[in-house]
Amino acid sequence: MAGRDDGNSAYGHKAFKRSKSHFADRITADGRDGWPVAAGRYRLVVSRACPWASRAVISRRLLGLEDALSMAITDPVQDDRSWRFTLDPDGRDPVLGIRFLAEAYERREKDYPGGVSVPAIVDVTDGKLVTNDYQRITLDLATEWRALHRDGAPDLYPEPLRDEIDAVMAEVYEDVNNGVYRAGFAAEQDEYEGACAAVFRRLESLASRLAGQRYLVGDTITEADIRLFTTLVRFDAVYHGHFKCNRWKLAENEVLWAYARDLFQTPGFGDTVDFDHIKRHYHQVHTGINPTRIVPLGPDLSGWLSPHHRERLGGRPFGDGTPPGPVRPGEEVPPLGRP
Amino acid sequence: MAGRDDGNSAYGHKAFKRSKSHFADRITADGRDGWPVAAGRYRLVVSRACPWASRAVISRRLLGLEDALSMAITDPVQDDRSWRFTLDPDGRDPVLGIRFLAEAYERREKDYPGGVSVPAIVDVTDGKLVTNDYQRITLDLATEWRALHRDGAPDLYPEPLRDEIDAVMAEVYEDVNNGVYRAGFAAEQDEYEGACAAVFRRLESLASRLAGQRYLVGDTITEADIRLFTTLVRFDAVYHGHFKCNRWKLAENEVLWAYARDLFQTPGFGDTVDFDHIKRHYHQVHTGINPTRIVPLGPDLSGWLSPHHRERLGGRPFGDGTPPGPVRPGEEVPPLGRP
Repeated sequence: MAGRDDGNSAYGHKAFKRSKSHFADRITADGRDGWPVAAGRYRLVVSRACPWASRAVISRRLLGLEDALSMAITDPVQDDRSWRFTLDPDGRDPVLGIRFLAEAYERREKDYPGGVSVPAIVDVTDGKLVTNDYQRITLDLATEWRALHRDGAPDLYPEPLRDEIDAVMAEVYEDVNNGVYRAGFAAEQDEYEGACAAVFRRLESLASRLAGQRYLVGDTITEADIRLFTTLVRFDAVYHGHFKCNRWKLAENEVLWAYARDLFQTPGFGDTVDFDHIKRHYHQVHTGINPTRIVPLGPDLSGWLSPHHRERLGGRPFGDGTPPGPVRPGEEVPPLGRP
Repeated sequence: MAGRDDGNSAYGHKAFKRSKSHFADRITADGRDGWPVAAGRYRLVVSRACPWASRAVISRRLLGLEDALSMAITDPVQDDRSWRFTLDPDGRDPVLGIRFLAEAYERREKDYPGGVSVPAIVDVTDGKLVTNDYQRITLDLATEWRALHRDGAPDLYPEPLRDEIDAVMAEVYEDVNNGVYRAGFAAEQDEYEGACAAVFRRLESLASRLAGQRYLVGDTITEADIRLFTTLVRFDAVYHGHFKCNRWKLAENEVLWAYARDLFQTPGFGDTVDFDHIKRHYHQVHTGINPTRIVPLGPDLSGWLSPHHRERLGGRPFGDGTPPGPVRPGEEVPPLGRP
């Protein structure tokens, strides 16, 4: 997400509330909303800084949807017109031909008054936004887009485990994914303390769960792991200091740190993470909590590549499937520690 | 220190510069500046939040000067009239009878235009400030006040080691004691990066030095250890997040973390540390870098009491002397984790 609303919420005196996605049309196999799954028809717009968008970046890699669904990467730092394509030649997305993601929102709904958020999927044929429903997009990539998955793609949302996956994801969303934002954007001490305590209560409980099993649900990687990972990978780099979630660093929690490193080192996870984008986005955009816009030098990131020993717990990362191949040329992230 | 100037420096666009102490008269054994050492004549005014003042709090305990030199403790959060005695009944220091430390400055110099800082020593007989020279006060407590030291007081500034102590303290001051402030109050990215890199370069070099020896200079506790300790004890609680010195936490550096815990657990060090005062001061006073004034819940402080095993390196903490006795009633700090 991390749309314009995110930043503004830091200044108000009401508790941080994440706005609902305004455009919730679904791209489905049967096209019942008017948007049938089709190779080459849509473009996924993301920021590598944003945890909500990064879910889709990871899913697309794991499922091998790179050819079917192209990807546009925005500048990690929004300006007053929100997400922009300043990383591309002439500052325009080469497929959509637009300079700001807001233009696709505008084409979809004239004078749209809401926030512009990523992940967003745009119809390449008319340049209109289809959906910015960050909770739904990855579930649909895992299920509705199945005909276009690569050979050996894992089942990230297996039917028999969906109740358990949904339950875990709901708790992780409330206390962790969104909990760090509630802590970081709190305007009052008690609001912050409630959110921060809940973050660590939930993390302790997840650490207990993960002490004896490699993944959150079942013995393979699922959507639940992807959603926890995108918060954990940002934890020490931004949430610990910038959002004051500082009871301990992820690197100080043996189980969660090993779990996060295991995923980071799995093809499709760490090879999508750009710490430079992450750090610059949070520290330079949220001037309400970091008025100097200075980006910290730390933390030391080299530990992400250290052995995690989680394979001892068994588990079959990709189930009956296989790991994704190499990252598509042009979509590589900088190696750790070299922005 | 942490006078009014500290806060203001965060807003300017010039590099952070610590102002020199304006009142540098010395209280000496021979009274050559007009201020002879005398039991009961002076009052030491400190904030437990302030690292510069905390040097004097520790020295006074180690040297057993509690009876000779009484101590006033200010509220950790200054208002626009700076340090105040709001922790005392009726908000007045019971000995000096004043509500603000600034009143003692004013008695010394009418319409004094500079910052009000701690540590400060006030002449009880006329209520006038004698000195706020934070670099000199502890050296004089260790040397000029010798006639009033307790039996078994350590020599914190031993003559044969002074050159080495001075050299170490100068490097620690530049890169660490004051370096964290330069990093935290930097207005520009490159200024911050230079200061932060220097903090960690110096800490790495101190860790090498301390890997094989228990204390910084010689085999006993000296003024050099006191000055490094007062920064290290604040590191994870405030400098890591609030001042963005976040390459690693102290708790992640094996040598320095053991060294700091060793001192913390030595009578006269940890029993002077009030983490609640420390955390509230930095986070609530520096609104230029923490506009919400929210005080983080972390870090978990329980590790400060864990075994450090540094006694294996030998060393004689108090040299030919002895540890100080129990903390004076009324000067106790809250136990760890309970403000």
